Amino acid sequence: MDSTQKISHLALDIGGTLIKLVYFSANGDYSEESRNGCSVVHGKLCFAKFETRKIDDCLEFIRFNILHHSGVQHPNGEALDKLYVKATGGGAFKFADLFKEKLGILFDKEDEMHSLVGGVNFLLKTVPREAFTYLDGQKEFVKIDHNDLYPYLLVNIGSGVSMIKVDGDGKYERISGTSLGGGTFLGLGKLLTKCKSFDELLELSHHGNNRVIDMLVGDIYGGTDYSKIGLSSTAIASSFGKAISDGKELEDYQPEDVARSLLRMISNNIGQIAYLNALRFGLKRIFFGGFFIRGLEYTMDTISVAVHFWSRGEAKAMFLRHEGFLGALGAFTSYNNQSHNDLKPHHHTVQRAILNCSGDNLRHIPVTSNLNDSETIECSINLV
Amino acid sequence: MDSTQKISHLALDIGGTLIKLVYFSANGDYSEESRNGCSVVHGKLCFAKFETRKIDDCLEFIRFNILHHSGVQHPNGEALDKLYVKATGGGAFKFADLFKEKLGILFDKEDEMHSLVGGVNFLLKTVPREAFTYLDGQKEFVKIDHNDLYPYLLVNIGSGVSMIKVDGDGKYERISGTSLGGGTFLGLGKLLTKCKSFDELLELSHHGNNRVIDMLVGDIYGGTDYSKIGLSSTAIASSFGKAISDGKELEDYQPEDVARSLLRMISNNIGQIAYLNALRFGLKRIFFGGFFIRGLEYTMDTISVAVHFWSRGEAKAMFLRHEGFLGALGAFTSYNNQSHNDLKPHHHTVQRAILNCSGDNLRHIPVTSNLNDSETIECSINLV
Repeated sequence: MDSTQKISHLALDIGGTLIKLVYFSANGDYSEESRNGCSVVHGKLCFAKFETRKIDDCLEFIRFNILHHSGVQHPNGEALDKLYVKATGGGAFKFADLFKEKLGILFDKEDEMHSLVGGVNFLLKTVPREAFTYLDGQKEFVKIDHNDLYPYLLVNIGSGVSMIKVDGDGKYERISGTSLGGGTFLGLGKLLTKCKSFDELLELSHHGNNRVIDMLVGDIYGGTDYSKIGLSSTAIASSFGKAISDGKELEDYQPEDVARSLLRMISNNIGQIAYLNALRFGLKRIFFGGFFIRGLEYTMDTISVAVHFWSRGEAKAMFLRHEGFLGALGAFTSYNNQSHNDLKPHHHTVQRAILNCSGDNLRHIPVTSNLNDSETIECSINLV
Repeated sequence: MDSTQKISHLALDIGGTLIKLVYFSANGDYSEESRNGCSVVHGKLCFAKFETRKIDDCLEFIRFNILHHSGVQHPNGEALDKLYVKATGGGAFKFADLFKEKLGILFDKEDEMHSLVGGVNFLLKTVPREAFTYLDGQKEFVKIDHNDLYPYLLVNIGSGVSMIKVDGDGKYERISGTSLGGGTFLGLGKLLTKCKSFDELLELSHHGNNRVIDMLVGDIYGGTDYSKIGLSSTAIASSFGKAISDGKELEDYQPEDVARSLLRMISNNIGQIAYLNALRFGLKRIFFGGFFIRGLEYTMDTISVAVHFWSRGEAKAMFLRHEGFLGALGAFTSYNNQSHNDLKPHHHTVQRAILNCSGDNLRHIPVTSNLNDSETIECSINLV
């Protein structure tokens, strides 16, 4: 890391599986201009994530790259042992003592649902080309009409899944959820395929064929459709249903096929439950977020098809480019509410960098991305 | 089998996992009385099931116990190679040629959804103490008001799950379903625990603890609730989510705990999707059927709790004593529509016998049941 970078305004979202970080990094020249009595600092929002079970890596990352090099300071100039940072997610409670003890950081806790909604509203209102649809291999950006944004359904797929009806800024209700989420995909996936990571499991699923293990309508009906009720012969009648009768053991299946069936099962189920909830409240727009999706085309396609199928084309699944950092972004934007600074994203340049950090490279942040378009969000912060 | 028994009116429901049989067995003395020009034969409805993958056992069972010993005759007295029997489920299509070739039986195919609905309506209208609720360990029979039966939601959990809105006799619509059904439970269960049968898997789950592998809200929040949105610390945040971070492999978990988490995941998911569909159409009564349930208390309790939780007590989960034979019963009752006979169940005596048959004991039908109350349905058939 360039030690001339000035980093401030750290926000954390500590979930059951992943810790997500958002922080502001001032431009190298640390240009600061004065406007209406405020100092305006130009820079960008950066994003990083760690596995929650490797929380020590996260602590080290913050110590060496944010606290040590970059001079994060409390706005009031208090000593570091009284440094407050915004934190959300269950880990903001679970790990509060650990952060205090190891880093001298105190958590200014933000509610998890509030942060998610804040993050999405921030993105939809300020970052162009943020939301997109994905169907039949076509990614299409959605123009957001700020006057016709609400209500919408937010489906955040973390370890578990939360479904939130959003009616406005800070106006929302968690209406549903499901325990079959990213944690189920990775948890079952690890047990079934012995793969070690989410990325590995996704890579496996990419090369698999779900028809090997899923029982299709055609398998039951002898190759024909059950057209009377609109079930084609290739529709999945029973996820993993073929494993009943094949006389095979786990070792006899290709891990790729197992991973594919699992991804399809979870994605399809989330799409269906999301649609049913959207229907309850007449919501036509469903935004899917959370680290489960990872911009993976097959996942987005499955979710889109599920929403399209069940709603008969009435409801639309939309995805977000910063899907994994909604809660962290929401917690970050809550610095705004403290009135002594004001976050202003630059609308014309949007970039994301996902920092994948673990033990070895903590002192040299590799700016890598598992997406094609690596993106940070360029922005400025007003310091009063 | 007592070879003096006269068996007739066989109906089959051939699903992806199980073949269900219903047939009429006349009383040993073959008492036949004449009423209004009809012969009335007293006897009982008998039930049997086979695994679809062991369809040869089913063929042998029919050959030796129904065709051979019992003189099933076509009503018109035609030769056996023109014998028609009622058949429903996907296997009525898939295995039609096999039954014709091996047994000389031709399938008179009945639509699967139509048969399910017919079976449930038959049970609810004619068999007392058929439907019951199950909550907090309490089984309570539901008195069915024939004038206030419709509409209701029928959730049939076979390999996959069908959800059918029923508005009257023969008036129904398949409104939803899910591929996460009994086939998923057994398929994933076999892969994860190496158990061989549904019964074995259920027995395992009975002794397990889902908290070992499921990620609870308390696991994320450090033991506290997320009370603001009504999630207790013991609510499941992510099914199988703990398998992510434990650093354990499949072999390190007890099969009992895996089976328990799996049963909870599937049951809860079905309960939730059923509730959401009941909500769409304002249906207060949800009947759950299909062989997945098996009268298992934990399954019924989980489904009931899911429906109760999501509906805030508005909707009610109900179960059926003949849950596994709905489609077969519906196909059976369609003999009625052919006008030359009329099925009349005796209301005062209801018994069920589930015949669990496989290779060794095909010629000696063991009348065993995996339920406490073994039940056939005593009835009479009018032969015009």
